[in-house]
Amino acid sequence: MRVVQFGLGAIGQAAARLVLEKSALQLVGAVERDPQFLGRDLGEVLELGHPLGIKVTDQPPTAAAAIHCTTSNFTAAAAQISDIVRAGMHCVTSCEEALLPAFRDAPAAAALDALCREHKVSVVGTGVNPGFVMDTLPALLTSVCQHVHSIHVTRVVDAGTRRPALQKKVGAGLTPAEFDQLVHTGKIRHVGLTDSLMFLAEALGWDDVDVTETVSPVLGADGNVAGVRQLARGGNLTLELEMYVGAPNPRDEIFIEGVPPLHVVIQGGTAGDLATPAMLVNLLPRLVEARPGLHTMRTLALPHLET
Amino acid sequence: MRVVQFGLGAIGQAAARLVLEKSALQLVGAVERDPQFLGRDLGEVLELGHPLGIKVTDQPPTAAAAIHCTTSNFTAAAAQISDIVRAGMHCVTSCEEALLPAFRDAPAAAALDALCREHKVSVVGTGVNPGFVMDTLPALLTSVCQHVHSIHVTRVVDAGTRRPALQKKVGAGLTPAEFDQLVHTGKIRHVGLTDSLMFLAEALGWDDVDVTETVSPVLGADGNVAGVRQLARGGNLTLELEMYVGAPNPRDEIFIEGVPPLHVVIQGGTAGDLATPAMLVNLLPRLVEARPGLHTMRTLALPHLET
Repeated sequence: MRVVQFGLGAIGQAAARLVLEKSALQLVGAVERDPQFLGRDLGEVLELGHPLGIKVTDQPPTAAAAIHCTTSNFTAAAAQISDIVRAGMHCVTSCEEALLPAFRDAPAAAALDALCREHKVSVVGTGVNPGFVMDTLPALLTSVCQHVHSIHVTRVVDAGTRRPALQKKVGAGLTPAEFDQLVHTGKIRHVGLTDSLMFLAEALGWDDVDVTETVSPVLGADGNVAGVRQLARGGNLTLELEMYVGAPNPRDEIFIEGVPPLHVVIQGGTAGDLATPAMLVNLLPRLVEARPGLHTMRTLALPHLET
Repeated sequence: MRVVQFGLGAIGQAAARLVLEKSALQLVGAVERDPQFLGRDLGEVLELGHPLGIKVTDQPPTAAAAIHCTTSNFTAAAAQISDIVRAGMHCVTSCEEALLPAFRDAPAAAALDALCREHKVSVVGTGVNPGFVMDTLPALLTSVCQHVHSIHVTRVVDAGTRRPALQKKVGAGLTPAEFDQLVHTGKIRHVGLTDSLMFLAEALGWDDVDVTETVSPVLGADGNVAGVRQLARGGNLTLELEMYVGAPNPRDEIFIEGVPPLHVVIQGGTAGDLATPAMLVNLLPRLVEARPGLHTMRTLALPHLET
């Protein structure tokens, strides 16, 4: 399958590298408008130590599928993905708000769905969070429940073990005042927590769920910010995300109060830097097999490793 | 959705009870040849304390879907399910060997698939084990892996907390000699371990996997058998099932050696007596939506609780 990579940020680069390792996939293009990348050989951008003969371009070649990693905002992503769909390509996107497109922008979602059907291709938003830990995985777990009363998911990430960009993103090293300012301007906030919660609510058939989200700092011993604690609540659903330097017992933990109850722990957590590109790439065959349209993780067949 | 229950063993009765609790489902019939049930009111059989106005019959009424819980053997199940399909009903079955029908009986699977397409209905085999803990769940977990080297799943069940029929099934209370004899005649053996392993091998695209299975007794302090330890191995896949009275730390545990590695624990395990009927019932909407044919847990959309 011929694949084009759209966006060469950290996730996009990791996805492109992974495509190169998969025997069933052929990377045929890389699209990025950032002048630091435009026109360069992709092998150099990816620091492979050898050229790939693929120049980074803003004019995508034709392929069977695109991996799209440029924005968290669904409305912005939908405009870009529409061009991808018009070119006849399936598209998997890391856009966080594309997890549940109709929740974020119902008209854009309906238009994109119609466009997908017209061009007989499929689009889905996924990743590890959102896309797996707090939505797809707990939804699957409820399949062995007769009844569910509540779901509580906690994801604890030791930001000290993650890339510097993530440490900056969670506010590590800021003063509490600086942190507050960045929270108020929306610069410190994991995008997708509300989307994961609404995904679960929809899967469970729970209507009338209103989500509230809070973002607060976790302070280190020096009084400065070590990272962030973000909480989304709605109905009987609670999603709790802690990402800070030195967080003890990193893990993903899912409590389902129900019949039977389930208590699931991913010890050490799911390493997002590795897991997100994996999900993007592994989902491509499921997308190509699916009926044309705008999909969610609920409407595709079971994702799993593709070799 | 009108539903008929085929088979009124422990799992079949539990599934029928659960259908009665689901607002989107209507139980319209119960089929069982066992003379202890035939002709009785289903409410009485299910010990509901009130009649349901549904007589247990060997002549099934027409419905949208059937829940089939009569046998572990796919070839035998396929003959029964063919009649269900000819009557125009979708069918979810707890038949363990129906997890991967083509592995057990390729000609019967192909014939059933063709029959499903002809009658525009779908069939799938599922449950909790096989169907979830050792196959569907680990397969989904690999979707966040870039590469997988090996998978090891351990399921530990304290048979002392389960129904007496299960304790008998695992040989609790037998002498080692009695146990050996029942193992040799195939009377003590969890059906489905090999099927789960082959399901994973197929999902991962690992060809040339040969499975070996061993069944050995776990002895109690009195020298008699407390239960069973069953091991399936093939390629880099290991499935280990321990079911005995007094088993410490009951759990489902999945180790995936890969990039990233994953270590997932379901603390206390997944209660099979509750979880199996849940999966059977929860899967019905996924089955009805699917393209007609003989499905597996890999080809249906993500299962989750149905209210």
